[in-house]
Amino acid sequence: LEKSQAKLVNFTNMVISLGKDDPRRVIHSFKVGLALILISILQYFRPSFYAFGDNIMWAVLTVVLVLEFSVGATLGKGLNRVLATGLAGAFGVSIRRIASFSGDKGKAVLTSMFVFFIAGTVTFMRFSPRLKASYDYGLIIFILTFCLVSLSDNTENELLEVAQERLLTIIIGSCIAIVVSICICPVWIGQDLHNQIAGNIQKLADFLEGFGDEYFNNLGNTEEAAGDNKPFFHRYESVLSSKGSEETMAVLARWEPCHGGFRFHHPWKQYLKVGNQIRLCAYKIKALSVFLLRSEQTPYELRSRIQEPCTNISMESGMALKESLLILKHMTKSSMPNPHVANAKNAAESLKSVLRTNPWEGADHLEIIPAATVASLLIDIVICVENICEAVDELATLAN
Amino acid sequence: LEKSQAKLVNFTNMVISLGKDDPRRVIHSFKVGLALILISILQYFRPSFYAFGDNIMWAVLTVVLVLEFSVGATLGKGLNRVLATGLAGAFGVSIRRIASFSGDKGKAVLTSMFVFFIAGTVTFMRFSPRLKASYDYGLIIFILTFCLVSLSDNTENELLEVAQERLLTIIIGSCIAIVVSICICPVWIGQDLHNQIAGNIQKLADFLEGFGDEYFNNLGNTEEAAGDNKPFFHRYESVLSSKGSEETMAVLARWEPCHGGFRFHHPWKQYLKVGNQIRLCAYKIKALSVFLLRSEQTPYELRSRIQEPCTNISMESGMALKESLLILKHMTKSSMPNPHVANAKNAAESLKSVLRTNPWEGADHLEIIPAATVASLLIDIVICVENICEAVDELATLAN
Repeated sequence: LEKSQAKLVNFTNMVISLGKDDPRRVIHSFKVGLALILISILQYFRPSFYAFGDNIMWAVLTVVLVLEFSVGATLGKGLNRVLATGLAGAFGVSIRRIASFSGDKGKAVLTSMFVFFIAGTVTFMRFSPRLKASYDYGLIIFILTFCLVSLSDNTENELLEVAQERLLTIIIGSCIAIVVSICICPVWIGQDLHNQIAGNIQKLADFLEGFGDEYFNNLGNTEEAAGDNKPFFHRYESVLSSKGSEETMAVLARWEPCHGGFRFHHPWKQYLKVGNQIRLCAYKIKALSVFLLRSEQTPYELRSRIQEPCTNISMESGMALKESLLILKHMTKSSMPNPHVANAKNAAESLKSVLRTNPWEGADHLEIIPAATVASLLIDIVICVENICEAVDELATLAN
Repeated sequence: LEKSQAKLVNFTNMVISLGKDDPRRVIHSFKVGLALILISILQYFRPSFYAFGDNIMWAVLTVVLVLEFSVGATLGKGLNRVLATGLAGAFGVSIRRIASFSGDKGKAVLTSMFVFFIAGTVTFMRFSPRLKASYDYGLIIFILTFCLVSLSDNTENELLEVAQERLLTIIIGSCIAIVVSICICPVWIGQDLHNQIAGNIQKLADFLEGFGDEYFNNLGNTEEAAGDNKPFFHRYESVLSSKGSEETMAVLARWEPCHGGFRFHHPWKQYLKVGNQIRLCAYKIKALSVFLLRSEQTPYELRSRIQEPCTNISMESGMALKESLLILKHMTKSSMPNPHVANAKNAAESLKSVLRTNPWEGADHLEIIPAATVASLLIDIVICVENICEAVDELATLAN
């Protein structure tokens, strides 16, 4: 009994945290329920000019399958569904007419051959990465509708009538899904992509701003790693594996109409470039973060000789990223070049000139190696930060 | 005209390379065509004991949607579809019976309320990452079937008959899809996951085995980066973003029955752990690879002082990974510990003792920093390689 009670509590907590993490999830669930109620009302007060018959089923099917979490996904699926159904229906009817010229038995054989050939070809097309990204759903629906029309038992006149009704029902279903998706608390996936990229820059900036103090002054925050509130030097880790989700979002965002600050042809591809630069920087930071936990391997005295330029580099790099965040937020390229990038580069130069004075002369090389690696990685990070800032500038230029 | 000709050539090349990259894609397309022909034969020689009627449609729908590239995905979708349809059908019929107690108008209102509530709840459940991974398709089909049954116009007796026929048709469709998927050149996603992990280890091993020569002897291969044949120091890059695909494969692999060397309860989760260790090593290698292009920043004379231990570390690490590959291939943990891991650790110790002799005494610190960083990263990589080997050993133990 206690076990099942604990499970119930666990389950409830999971549900609550799911809703708390993103309250839009709760709203989306309401939206799906609402869209289905709209369909059932439509069925109840069946419009007199149009006898839905059993075809109401196709409206339900369309709403359940098309209404996705984001507007972009809903629009993409809805348009794919309507276009693919229309095309495949017309194509299927033509194939039937061609096949019907060859007698009763010939018709069955010919239809099967067409189904085999067309379904196989379209299935193969689904492997193309470019088609898969935007039109995968449409291609499946094409196969589906084509087979249904070709293999149907009905006579041609019945079939045409049924096909028209179904297409109309699917259009109505898609429209309901799209209207509900756009009109009630819309979730713009483009906005989400924008926020995720901005969030990733923020995480890197937090790491860089915190790194200097942590490495040189050993604040001992490294112990807080446990618990829910991840400290700054773990938060960036989600950036490392963000490639897949960014690519999916960018594809879906292209379906979205003008909303908020985003045009229809917003340069979504440039977000992927920014994302790649962010990840390159995150890989470097991953290598750097190892030394936070091992800062005691190098005596403070040795570390302190490069403390000032290193702290400057990481602080200015962090501030450069935050400056870049402002550009991303307002989508206006500032007329002046980012001052913190220049500062960070200057700090890197002064680190290099400190190193030229051989600050660790006479020290044990095994002890200076961690500090030397930190210096080297920081110098590399400045280049990465500059690349991120440039990519963001280009994004702001393209967006206007 | 020339433009369209060029496009056609491009398109043909793309199609050919799609097929060449993975010939199983062509076979899969044939399989889909074949499954649909099986359905159309079934319809033509309609079994006398069972009047499919228009329900043949559901078999087509099921085959098109369920027959996926891999056996795991097909089995998962097929089982999800059958179970969800059965459950949702039974549930929908009960709800209709409950609603029918409250008069004609009450019934419509009550049904709508149930649809709203149930569809909303199940939609919300789809956001749970754990349910989404394995049962997303089942949850959608549950909503779909439940709404179709609840909103249907038919009387209860008609409905029960239709529901039975449809369930049977869906079972037949799923069975055809599963049989075709398993019996004709099956694509086991578990095998694919195994191969991908092995391939990733191979890529790291190639990098490490090649690194020493390239960095210290400057073979100049770094120029070959262009062209299709990526050199060893770029091939590992695909490992960096492999997390998503590995997770998807591991989820699908769990549906697969015993095949080849894999049991039904093969430890697929352990593959993810191995994959994570591989990625941690790849991040380090990413940081290391920067120095391949910049080896000339440090005069050869300075580099040569750590050449022997560094070359040993990278060579032995690469060989340790290849030894681990053999364990992965035969899935039998060898009784002796991996000798190359011990060698690599020894090489790391001897690198440390070389460093203790302050090999670069008097040299410009700015010049020694890249070499020092390479040394430091190589010492870290030995730990990563050891972790990979341990994870593979654990996998081999769990698999038996």
